[in-house]
Amino acid sequence: MSYRDDLAASAGRVQACLADELAGYGDAPVIAAMRYAVRGGKGLRGYLVLESAALHGVAEARALPAAAAIEAVHAYSLIHDDLPAMDDDALRRGQPTLHVKWDEATAILAGDALQTLAFELLARTGCAADPAVRVALIASLARAAGARGMVLGQAQDIAAETALAPLSLEGITELQVNKTGALIRWSAEAGALLAGADPGAMGRYAASLGLAFQIADDILDVEGDAAKAGKALRKDAGAGKATFVSLLGLEGARARARALVEEALDALSAYDARADGLRATARFVITREK
Amino acid sequence: MSYRDDLAASAGRVQACLADELAGYGDAPVIAAMRYAVRGGKGLRGYLVLESAALHGVAEARALPAAAAIEAVHAYSLIHDDLPAMDDDALRRGQPTLHVKWDEATAILAGDALQTLAFELLARTGCAADPAVRVALIASLARAAGARGMVLGQAQDIAAETALAPLSLEGITELQVNKTGALIRWSAEAGALLAGADPGAMGRYAASLGLAFQIADDILDVEGDAAKAGKALRKDAGAGKATFVSLLGLEGARARARALVEEALDALSAYDARADGLRATARFVITREK
Repeated sequence: MSYRDDLAASAGRVQACLADELAGYGDAPVIAAMRYAVRGGKGLRGYLVLESAALHGVAEARALPAAAAIEAVHAYSLIHDDLPAMDDDALRRGQPTLHVKWDEATAILAGDALQTLAFELLARTGCAADPAVRVALIASLARAAGARGMVLGQAQDIAAETALAPLSLEGITELQVNKTGALIRWSAEAGALLAGADPGAMGRYAASLGLAFQIADDILDVEGDAAKAGKALRKDAGAGKATFVSLLGLEGARARARALVEEALDALSAYDARADGLRATARFVITREK
Repeated sequence: MSYRDDLAASAGRVQACLADELAGYGDAPVIAAMRYAVRGGKGLRGYLVLESAALHGVAEARALPAAAAIEAVHAYSLIHDDLPAMDDDALRRGQPTLHVKWDEATAILAGDALQTLAFELLARTGCAADPAVRVALIASLARAAGARGMVLGQAQDIAAETALAPLSLEGITELQVNKTGALIRWSAEAGALLAGADPGAMGRYAASLGLAFQIADDILDVEGDAAKAGKALRKDAGAGKATFVSLLGLEGARARARALVEEALDALSAYDARADGLRATARFVITREK
């Protein structure tokens, strides 16, 4: 099975887990919007949870709730980022965004409830028998997703749009470590936490991976095909925003992304072939088309 | 000390706990907005946590994180409810709402991060030494706040505004049990959960209290003084929405609220004078002016 097939199959299992959870929630529009929001997508964060868990000897059935939780948080963040008051995007994963398909109120509420759902999934015994493990996952996810992590990064991104001067390389790196890096890091660390193991190597791997992912995103924004990406592109240049491409140039950005992938692979050097999924992910993030 | 003084003092301690937490979060606008959002307010939910905890022999220092968590969730819900896409309110607690004072993007993000903060506070050892207790509080709060609780209630409330027929008494009761009842119930049960005790009596008390609170809110909307309430009133009648007052009449609604307060007091009959704060709360909710 190719890496892309493997990733797609994993995304399907995580999405099925979320669909099963939401099946019993009734038929209000906000619930339908939640179901819609957790369909599609690469499922990269959930895949990292499952692969990191397998590497640490945790069975997939035990890792699925954590994978579903991080995909729920990711889906919530996309819904809110796409709102007219934020990035005002009409297309996501090749489909209309929630506020276009339903309305803004439903989109705000569906995002809110998907965040809540993530913590609900992690708090249940199905996630881990040991409550100390569950609470460790919850504490670290809250730290990564909140006002010192993802939300701060999104706020910094919005502030950068109206700032007098474009961000420096240091500024944009900090922004991206918060905005996308924190959740990617949590995903890779979650498998170690589920096993009660030291998440150190997973954290180093994911720090490099997350930054490479974002540089690739900036390159995609310039070079990508909107139909393949399933979302609007060429937004950053139009907005006059600093990106890794505007700061490093296209070739410089590519070189930096490749170097980061090597760093991510180095962080996995102590592991055998069971880390090959994580290795393939590092190579994938800079070659993907969406 | 009068009940109102006692409630205000409790609100001050819970707000100080949130201010201390946010003091180390830097100075981005989204953080300033979070600080602003957790100031003011009656602090009724936090008070219920502290009183319920005291009744179950839990020291206030141990109950403060849970009280801060529920006030953070309440603040998040108010920020998002006040947005233009939802209730479009410009005034809250006598001050401009967040999207008026900052902007919509900052308001959405501040609300998002306050929800996250609630789970972060509950996940820390400061909340309870036993991780099983922390995870029980997290699981029940997520259930109460999410798509089968508060968010569903808010969605039902918005749907009612555009429905062809006004809600029945049964429909509006279900809506309010979700929208405001679920968090009030969690607040009263939290003290029992912190002590590892059965939350049954607290749940019965809070179910009646929450409904009485909402009926009083509907009465306030008709009879209240906007300056004292610190928010816009006469909104429901203007919107043609069904309320407990429109369905039961003003006298009928008052009688129902009084009966619910008696039910709430009955649920406390097994407790001595240490439950007097909870008893006073039951009487307070139908006599308050905001």
